[in-house]
Amino acid sequence: MSGVQIPSRSLKMTLGKKKFGELTKAEMPLFIDLYELTMAQGHIEMGHNVIASFDLSFRDMPDILGYILVAGLEDVVRYIESIAFEEEALRFLREMGFKESLCEYLADFKFTGDMRAVPEGTVVFQNEPIIEITAPIVEAQILETVLINQMGFQSLIATKAARIYDTVQKYGQEQSLIEFGARRAHGVEAGIKASRAAYIGGFEGTSNLAAGIMYDIPVMGTMAHSWIQSYGTEREAFESFIEIYGEASILLIDTYDTVEGAKKAKEIAQTRGVKIKGVRLDSGDLASLSKQVKAIVGDLGIYITSGLDEYKISHFLQEGGIATGFGVGSNLVTIQDIPVAEIVYKLVQVEENGKKIPSMKFSDGKRTYPGEKSIKRLVKNGKYQKDILALKGEELEGEEQLIDIYSNGKLVYELPQLETIQKKSIESIFALPESCKGIESHEPYEVEISKGINSLISTLL
Amino acid sequence: MSGVQIPSRSLKMTLGKKKFGELTKAEMPLFIDLYELTMAQGHIEMGHNVIASFDLSFRDMPDILGYILVAGLEDVVRYIESIAFEEEALRFLREMGFKESLCEYLADFKFTGDMRAVPEGTVVFQNEPIIEITAPIVEAQILETVLINQMGFQSLIATKAARIYDTVQKYGQEQSLIEFGARRAHGVEAGIKASRAAYIGGFEGTSNLAAGIMYDIPVMGTMAHSWIQSYGTEREAFESFIEIYGEASILLIDTYDTVEGAKKAKEIAQTRGVKIKGVRLDSGDLASLSKQVKAIVGDLGIYITSGLDEYKISHFLQEGGIATGFGVGSNLVTIQDIPVAEIVYKLVQVEENGKKIPSMKFSDGKRTYPGEKSIKRLVKNGKYQKDILALKGEELEGEEQLIDIYSNGKLVYELPQLETIQKKSIESIFALPESCKGIESHEPYEVEISKGINSLISTLL
Repeated sequence: MSGVQIPSRSLKMTLGKKKFGELTKAEMPLFIDLYELTMAQGHIEMGHNVIASFDLSFRDMPDILGYILVAGLEDVVRYIESIAFEEEALRFLREMGFKESLCEYLADFKFTGDMRAVPEGTVVFQNEPIIEITAPIVEAQILETVLINQMGFQSLIATKAARIYDTVQKYGQEQSLIEFGARRAHGVEAGIKASRAAYIGGFEGTSNLAAGIMYDIPVMGTMAHSWIQSYGTEREAFESFIEIYGEASILLIDTYDTVEGAKKAKEIAQTRGVKIKGVRLDSGDLASLSKQVKAIVGDLGIYITSGLDEYKISHFLQEGGIATGFGVGSNLVTIQDIPVAEIVYKLVQVEENGKKIPSMKFSDGKRTYPGEKSIKRLVKNGKYQKDILALKGEELEGEEQLIDIYSNGKLVYELPQLETIQKKSIESIFALPESCKGIESHEPYEVEISKGINSLISTLL
Repeated sequence: MSGVQIPSRSLKMTLGKKKFGELTKAEMPLFIDLYELTMAQGHIEMGHNVIASFDLSFRDMPDILGYILVAGLEDVVRYIESIAFEEEALRFLREMGFKESLCEYLADFKFTGDMRAVPEGTVVFQNEPIIEITAPIVEAQILETVLINQMGFQSLIATKAARIYDTVQKYGQEQSLIEFGARRAHGVEAGIKASRAAYIGGFEGTSNLAAGIMYDIPVMGTMAHSWIQSYGTEREAFESFIEIYGEASILLIDTYDTVEGAKKAKEIAQTRGVKIKGVRLDSGDLASLSKQVKAIVGDLGIYITSGLDEYKISHFLQEGGIATGFGVGSNLVTIQDIPVAEIVYKLVQVEENGKKIPSMKFSDGKRTYPGEKSIKRLVKNGKYQKDILALKGEELEGEEQLIDIYSNGKLVYELPQLETIQKKSIESIFALPESCKGIESHEPYEVEISKGINSLISTLL
């Protein structure tokens, strides 16, 4: 679609210098869809920068999910704290043909509005706002692309991690869970944020050093097939590794034949008098092999990898597979069976002359709930009973899930430690009814739409 | 799995300072899986930094794909050119317990090996190496995480874009294709690289400004529902937009009722005497609505969005839907139906005492082809006939697909312009047999395994 087409092809700028793909501070606010700025300019030119409220929510939860575990707020806050349209960016916008009115506005850009959100580690359901912003419409829209971008994939990965964590709690003996998906993530940023989201969902560690450094997550690892193959024989490869790493060694035993590999690992360790940490299985019928290997290696650890996810781990455990820990990569970080969810950022209210006018979209199959919201959660004996999606200020019982993050542009929320977020997640997962946690099938958790919202919809229709 | 567990929790470093998630130059080489460094240290300690060859290939192509369009090489080259273990990173590794031997080695780290690759915009098939590296094993392994990470998702997105492009060529009138998935991509880096990959696959533009700047891609856009909703009526909203943008306007007409919206758009434009660019449809039965809208708006453009992909566009066009252009977002950038593919980096040869020893992995279902490779493509009248996956140096007819990128650590390849890559992609897509391009089903393209490889496997077995 051509629309307001502005080819940047001919511009000579200091921005966009060829690099690995990371954006500089000056480029960062330009990670935005053109129409946001087109509309921003339009609103400014028309003197129509009205106060508006936007809800960020999962409009359609993927069918397989009974809940969504929210993650990503920390990056949203860091983004809002750092966003600034520097001279370089403004020069670019001017050269693209944007008017001076917009550029002047952006030169002083700062978020001045209110933001409420559910903290990371909260579970939510379809249509519940995970962030709600009330601000001049231009400000609210300039944040849109990054808000959806960060909250979407991080929440889905955290959710997938939670499903895996819950599966291990249910059928296993609390085996350790390590995320090792960096290589299959959609880039470097996606890789480290996947590690963080997995940790939020209950994982213990990551394979990736950078993620460990960025987020203080324990870093763990074993060896690759190439170590084995780089030696003439598997025996030499095992000997060399134990020579260097001693008791910390975990030997990968499936390069040639898993059962033979297990025997060799056990024998070499015994001969050397070293109690190695364990062995890793990465192919074949894992449940069956793990039992055969257990009979050989006794009390050594057995670590399982190979295309794992909640379904495969569930089958493995239910077939009596024996494991000390699971390494989970691709299916987790690419959120393989829920790669995309309808996370949307929709206008729910406009203020005109100090009067709040709720708004909704009537589009076929894409209807939204109007008005500023409240999520009331009814909790009994530490278990979630049901939610009521209500209007802000509607008098109802239940624990409010949306808390203040920004007030008049001021950050009023202290970002919690990652440990604290994980703790909250685990409590949330335990508080959910079993019926909505099934990985193969589940019952929907009850989210009641309040009288306030329903009567508002009637009025607007 | 605990293995060589090294918690970074207690370290006080200048690395990993809280920021939005982008890595500094010092942190970048630490985007690596711990076991790469564990093995690196092992090889160095054992005096076993042998010359090794690794193939990067799609081991199992997702069932729905008849081909893979390769993208990502530019980032791999930029990474290799920039990788350096700075003092900060080395200090961190020392504090983690890595030995001085490894840290000294890394302090001088530079890629000194050979790299061959298929250029971006080449189509490949299962098991064909898209990159082959021959280098001291430690160097080759240190690159592994980033190589897989960048080539994997970029190639899959380019492939999905190519399938969409090919669908429009086949059933449409060469409608323009715009990528607008930034908000649903897995982060900022994933967003801009998805725009580039989509462009490689035949798209014309992106919605995202930063992607436009980074890669010189035309940036395009329309308006959001919030523009419409922010005004009291759809009429006011349309009037205001045309007031500012005149003939460049594309009006979003589905907020309340698509057909009524089309009438209003047409009438307002006519009354004002402005020939607007067109209208956008974003919900409902798009093919049917587009025909109704066409009858109303006449020669104005009709732009279609809403969860599009190759299947939906194919149905839309086959049902006689009318479109000037398609905007494609989530399903493309999240590679919704092929979110993960088995892209692997496997040791295929080791040199010992100057002797090349081919190597393969025997693991159940994960066997690899041994030896340094060659991909010979038989081309007749501009159409691909079949490939032969052969050993490097094996005398065979056909066009070699792997070209030299690095020779003894020196970059011997000039990175092509994005335009040039797109041109190559489009030629490649046209050169493919129709039978392997079907989106609902396809015949496999023939990849013959050469006598050289087959006899090598027999020997190794």
